Amino acid sequence: MPPDAVIYATSTEDVAAIVSTCAKHDCPIIPWGTGTSLEGHSLAPRGGVTIDLSRMDKILTVNPADMDATVQAGVTREALNTHLRATGLFFPVDPGANASLGGMTATRASGTTAVRYGTMRDNVLGLTVVLASGEIIHTGTRARKSSAGYDLTALMVGSEGTLGIITEITLKLQGQPQAISSAICAFETVAGAVDAVIATIQMGIQIARIELVDAASALAVNAHSGANFRACPHLLLEFHGSDSGVAEDAATFGEIAADHGGAGFEWSAKPEDRNRLWKMRHDAYYAILASRKGARAIVTDVCVPISRLAEALLETQDDIARSGITGPILGHVGDGNFHAILLIDPDSALERATAQALAARMAKRALSMGGTITGEHGVGMGKLDYMQAEHGHGWAVMGAIKSALDPQNIMNPDKLVPKRN
Amino acid sequence: MPPDAVIYATSTEDVAAIVSTCAKHDCPIIPWGTGTSLEGHSLAPRGGVTIDLSRMDKILTVNPADMDATVQAGVTREALNTHLRATGLFFPVDPGANASLGGMTATRASGTTAVRYGTMRDNVLGLTVVLASGEIIHTGTRARKSSAGYDLTALMVGSEGTLGIITEITLKLQGQPQAISSAICAFETVAGAVDAVIATIQMGIQIARIELVDAASALAVNAHSGANFRACPHLLLEFHGSDSGVAEDAATFGEIAADHGGAGFEWSAKPEDRNRLWKMRHDAYYAILASRKGARAIVTDVCVPISRLAEALLETQDDIARSGITGPILGHVGDGNFHAILLIDPDSALERATAQALAARMAKRALSMGGTITGEHGVGMGKLDYMQAEHGHGWAVMGAIKSALDPQNIMNPDKLVPKRN
Repeated sequence: MPPDAVIYATSTEDVAAIVSTCAKHDCPIIPWGTGTSLEGHSLAPRGGVTIDLSRMDKILTVNPADMDATVQAGVTREALNTHLRATGLFFPVDPGANASLGGMTATRASGTTAVRYGTMRDNVLGLTVVLASGEIIHTGTRARKSSAGYDLTALMVGSEGTLGIITEITLKLQGQPQAISSAICAFETVAGAVDAVIATIQMGIQIARIELVDAASALAVNAHSGANFRACPHLLLEFHGSDSGVAEDAATFGEIAADHGGAGFEWSAKPEDRNRLWKMRHDAYYAILASRKGARAIVTDVCVPISRLAEALLETQDDIARSGITGPILGHVGDGNFHAILLIDPDSALERATAQALAARMAKRALSMGGTITGEHGVGMGKLDYMQAEHGHGWAVMGAIKSALDPQNIMNPDKLVPKRN
Repeated sequence: MPPDAVIYATSTEDVAAIVSTCAKHDCPIIPWGTGTSLEGHSLAPRGGVTIDLSRMDKILTVNPADMDATVQAGVTREALNTHLRATGLFFPVDPGANASLGGMTATRASGTTAVRYGTMRDNVLGLTVVLASGEIIHTGTRARKSSAGYDLTALMVGSEGTLGIITEITLKLQGQPQAISSAICAFETVAGAVDAVIATIQMGIQIARIELVDAASALAVNAHSGANFRACPHLLLEFHGSDSGVAEDAATFGEIAADHGGAGFEWSAKPEDRNRLWKMRHDAYYAILASRKGARAIVTDVCVPISRLAEALLETQDDIARSGITGPILGHVGDGNFHAILLIDPDSALERATAQALAARMAKRALSMGGTITGEHGVGMGKLDYMQAEHGHGWAVMGAIKSALDPQNIMNPDKLVPKRN
């Protein structure tokens, strides 16, 4: 579904001029950052103009005293963190891909560090947005809180380009921790691993990352990255704090893990160990994809209350096992969020249908447990079919807001809200 | 501005029936919790029906494993915390008044603990809302995060009854800290106190509360509560953590304070000392009001980036001193938020005009520093005049959202958004 044209914008005013012109001609507008979104957010089902924001890559201001920065939408999270290195500050949200901060804002991205630092919802202070009319608004302020009316910042975060084009973002920054330790632990069962996670959170231990790699994923990572995981579920962790704090946190977690069937607990404060661990985790998707030659992946993304997580994981593993296709699981388990990477032969209509039915049952299961159909990937076109089930009349309310702000339906049409003609 | 009638609702279905009936007759609807809001949120300028939610006082569920609770809108924060006492959990947001959780949600309340735990924006997971049409929606889920469409929860938090009536709230809870310590320190200057706050935050010390009481407020508290503050600015603090953690945090803060002209630093882990300190702080408003016989107070509420806080405070103190009226200052300084309590003779048109002009200059000053016209009190009718200056075209966007969800303009009319006929 390609657009009719791609325009490279270099400023908010550029974007406003493009949108105004498109509005005159009822021409659809699709924003583009790094193209790393997963639910068809940047497809052009009605053609139109893709506005590529990757050249809007300036870091406009960094305010160390206020621990905030304002960037153009095309700045990637790695570029920002490289720029911040000398300041003692960093931007914590890490979805894995080196996505643009505009795209991360538009899809309400999160990833491995959300358990400690929150998602984009929690880390955006304000935005510059070009609306469908071509008008430019500035939402939020640089103050840490405000009660001045509707939270337009939060409305735009996660709106996937359907309400306007985000061109600048003011982000909260964090102090670089004095010390970081990483840890890994094998578990006999998924339930044991999840219970260890719940106990760790309830103890108030401030884990920065806590990731589940199930047995099937562990084997795929072994084959791809030369690791030597046992064929059982693992938790991968990171602690941020003082030298003594991270040592204490790791030790406390080790005791909790042992109480829940954990074995082979290891921790390290060495950067090389940590980098190896997280590279392995971030490469796990590719390891899983490589585990079946020529396969494509359908990546699911449910999130449930953590009290239901073990049950959701086990039912999903059973369901996948019965389906006859392969589906290793990776999870941001501190948030109750996990992904099954369903591997299919792209030429097999049967496998595709099987995977889609599995994904639909995962979404339904998450909703029945008080959870959501998407923890972090967004709606795009891929999750439209589940929106009514999650939101009921609330989905029509989203449609009403969309119609109010974009009466011509030119802003990234056919995504997120109920379809209009 | 009284309503024509008051209806006591006892369920979401009750509220839906009332709203449907009112919609048929174009009758305004004003929600009521405890009546503690400060900007005229619960006035009835067009008459109509006040829906009193105070009898919707049931705590519906508490989920200790997920650290969340669902309550009816009329439950007060103190009632919830009393109920939670035995669970090891608590709800942290504390605006001072024993407000209803529905009202706190509707006004995006915060208060003394926001520096650590965030505002209502950060602590609401989901809502049940009755819309202007009488339809009931459920926003959010019990999962810790979601990317499933527009953040209707965040849109409703702070919407002040203008988009719908909040009837149930799912709240994040926190673990009761193992230890709490409180501290107090006098400073030679406001700038020294603010610099100590900035240094404390940048050190990553997790203060739970950090409050400024200026010299004028300190004297008022002495007279009212029998305290013996020196006639200079003070910081009041609270630390939450482990026994050793809170002792270490207090000691580190003591060193930071000494570097910034702090004197007479004292800390305590005794509950009775802590309770006395925070009772004094919460009573400070009444102490200030009592300092001038027969006075009424106009309470301002600006919030600025913390790097500009000292400047904002000093310019405000100078401005007040020049005005000829009294205006002690209290501040949630960890957030950059402060209040001047402008004391006026209610029979003096001149004093009222002077105070209003001061308040207007405070709002303008906050905006010029990248801040907001209201950190936590909301817009209601009292802050309408400043909304255009803060939001520009964004205020019209709020009006467009309001019109889309409440075309008849019956939901708490004449509050927050641009006035309609």
